[in-house]
Amino acid sequence: MAKVHNFSAGPSILPREVLEKAASAVLDFDNLKLSLLEISHRSKNFEAVMERARSLVKELMQLPDGYSVLFLQGGASLQFVMVAQNLLRERGKAAYIDTGTWASNAIKEAKIFGQVEVVASSKADNYRYIPKGYTIPADADYFHCTSNNTIYGTQIKEFPTSPIPMVCDMSSDIFSRRIDFSKFSLIYAGAQKNMGPAGTTLVVVKDEILGKTGRAIPAMMDYRTHISKDSMYNTPPVFAVYVSMLTMEWLVSNGGLEWIENINRQKAELMYAEIDRNPLFYGTVAPEDRSWMNACFLLKDPALEPEFDKMWKEAGISGLRGHRSVGGYRASMYNALPLESVQVLVEVMKEFERIKG
Amino acid sequence: MAKVHNFSAGPSILPREVLEKAASAVLDFDNLKLSLLEISHRSKNFEAVMERARSLVKELMQLPDGYSVLFLQGGASLQFVMVAQNLLRERGKAAYIDTGTWASNAIKEAKIFGQVEVVASSKADNYRYIPKGYTIPADADYFHCTSNNTIYGTQIKEFPTSPIPMVCDMSSDIFSRRIDFSKFSLIYAGAQKNMGPAGTTLVVVKDEILGKTGRAIPAMMDYRTHISKDSMYNTPPVFAVYVSMLTMEWLVSNGGLEWIENINRQKAELMYAEIDRNPLFYGTVAPEDRSWMNACFLLKDPALEPEFDKMWKEAGISGLRGHRSVGGYRASMYNALPLESVQVLVEVMKEFERIKG
Ligand SMILES: Cc1ncc(COP(=O)(O)O)c(C=O)c1O
Ligand SMILES: Cc1ncc(COP(=O)(O)O)c(C=O)c1O
Ligand SMILES: [Mg+2]
Ligand SMILES: [Mg+2]
Ligand SMILES: [Mg+2]
Ligand SMILES: [Mg+2]
Repeated sequence: MAKVHNFSAGPSILPREVLEKAASAVLDFDNLKLSLLEISHRSKNFEAVMERARSLVKELMQLPDGYSVLFLQGGASLQFVMVAQNLLRERGKAAYIDTGTWASNAIKEAKIFGQVEVVASSKADNYRYIPKGYTIPADADYFHCTSNNTIYGTQIKEFPTSPIPMVCDMSSDIFSRRIDFSKFSLIYAGAQKNMGPAGTTLVVVKDEILGKTGRAIPAMMDYRTHISKDSMYNTPPVFAVYVSMLTMEWLVSNGGLEWIENINRQKAELMYAEIDRNPLFYGTVAPEDRSWMNACFLLKDPALEPEFDKMWKEAGISGLRGHRSVGGYRASMYNALPLESVQVLVEVMKEFERIKG
Repeated sequence: MAKVHNFSAGPSILPREVLEKAASAVLDFDNLKLSLLEISHRSKNFEAVMERARSLVKELMQLPDGYSVLFLQGGASLQFVMVAQNLLRERGKAAYIDTGTWASNAIKEAKIFGQVEVVASSKADNYRYIPKGYTIPADADYFHCTSNNTIYGTQIKEFPTSPIPMVCDMSSDIFSRRIDFSKFSLIYAGAQKNMGPAGTTLVVVKDEILGKTGRAIPAMMDYRTHISKDSMYNTPPVFAVYVSMLTMEWLVSNGGLEWIENINRQKAELMYAEIDRNPLFYGTVAPEDRSWMNACFLLKDPALEPEFDKMWKEAGISGLRGHRSVGGYRASMYNALPLESVQVLVEVMKEFERIKG
């Protein structure tokens, strides 16, 4: 087996050239004769990394003035807390749509800080579609949505126009397609799916929405603290920020969001076409809401799973099992996954049909 | 210049063999033909890393039953928040000693959650000593101390016997010497000084002290959440945990805390002997409280700084400048710094005396 086709849902595949540069920086960074892991985060060498990472985000998002870019720790799950703590006013209300496990975890954390109105949910239908046509209450402090539901394989294709600040968890499809990022007042994303390794979380926030809750916020939990120190209030996760910077450089130098959107569309079309065509498999998600990042599908006859598993593993495919909470299969096709890997998977599915069909 | 003598205060020097293994894992981990950065944190390969890291901590600390070991994100600064949020009861009180910038940041965060009694402080004397002979109030919820004050170069040599749970920030001297760790109910340490790279924070907590505040705690901020999921409630900082594991393996395989304590004593004795002996320099800290990790010193004639700086830089020394808030010099002599590097620095100081004295 020459090569692994890595369909892991996250942490997940990164470009090979990024990994090579990262490994080299662990041994010797910037010809300092020191590892990237051994230098002060206040050194000019690392400050340049942080600065470059933040400017790549601005370039990729084409943000107007008035936004700050942060690289924090704690994962997207800590943002579930910080978003509410920084935006939900004392005796205020927040609006959420519940589109999956992560959305519902975000809702749970927000409830610690105040009232939460769930304006729409597809939970009763096992999260197999994205609710549409709901009303966002104009009197709530913010509206929270999840752009891509990693576990269920649904993705918001058209974002609503919100009368209040719109917050989005983009953890699992950040930088996978062109979007009008300026529609959002706050965007966050754990790096480990489409932007880098585990260990850092991107937060992009419009400064004007902050400081309005009337609540005392611990310095470490207050976005304004981190903004005022350019993400260097305390020691940042140096390596994870560096690898995220390298991954964004890879993306930009290859053609940016337009380039990657085109490839991601091709991969998704190929994958879903086979799921639909192949009589042994079926997709679990409403077709119009299918995620380009995570394609969830099942075998019509679950008894065939062991044989199918054996076959894709022999083809060098890894990470294809669905999330432990839902089972079945999930092909995660993040930016760094080449079209070729999807072709290999599709060939395996076809071959499986020939044997079993 | 053949080699860098890395006196950086953190992130700081790591053993060369650890860096080599880390770089190799970034390219191919466990012969999976996948990078450590690309695999699921739920894979058995990474679960083994997390398990091993946690058991190395228990081995090094020789902890009795009843403690949980966590690897979290957010840095030691997030622990300033979590400690108070998890231990300070509604309408309760916490006791802190104020021995430096980090202690005082910890106090600031705790005040968000309730009353803080500062039982002793050396602030008025520019933090140049560790207060002693103070009384820990038996009616407080916990007592918080900082074992090593990274910026000021003081270190607690003998911990008090506390009538209430004792919490300690050991960020800058964790695993540098033998200690009776069972005296503490909670220990935390940002990895990036003596245990690994930036990006993960060790927390060791006695289970029985948790769940008593009467306060609603967001899941991500609640130690019990992370304990119940063995530090895998959300995606852990995979690479930082792995490198910390490698560093602890290096420590244990060489002889553990007894071995490193012996080396650290030698380095500190050599360093302070020269600071005392050399008429051009003086130490800033009360001799009985001098840190083995961070030796702070000044030139009697500050006008000589540029010349001295030139000289140690030419000798391959890096990271010797004091914290930007205090100036002067700080030789950080963490576990991975070889005795040889201190010898080189001492030689430079002697040579400087020959030229200038
Ligand atoms: C959409 C989404 N949000 C949040 C999370 C949680 O991220 P983290 O593990 O970094 O807390 C995930 C993780 O898979 C996710 O897919
Ligand atoms: C003793 C001590 N505590 C806390 C911190 C803050 O750690 P972090 O940057 O990981 O938040 C430091 C950092 O230097 C430290 O030396
Ligand atoms: Mg989901
Ligand atoms: Mg079909
Ligand atoms: Mg200090
Ligand atoms: Mg002297």
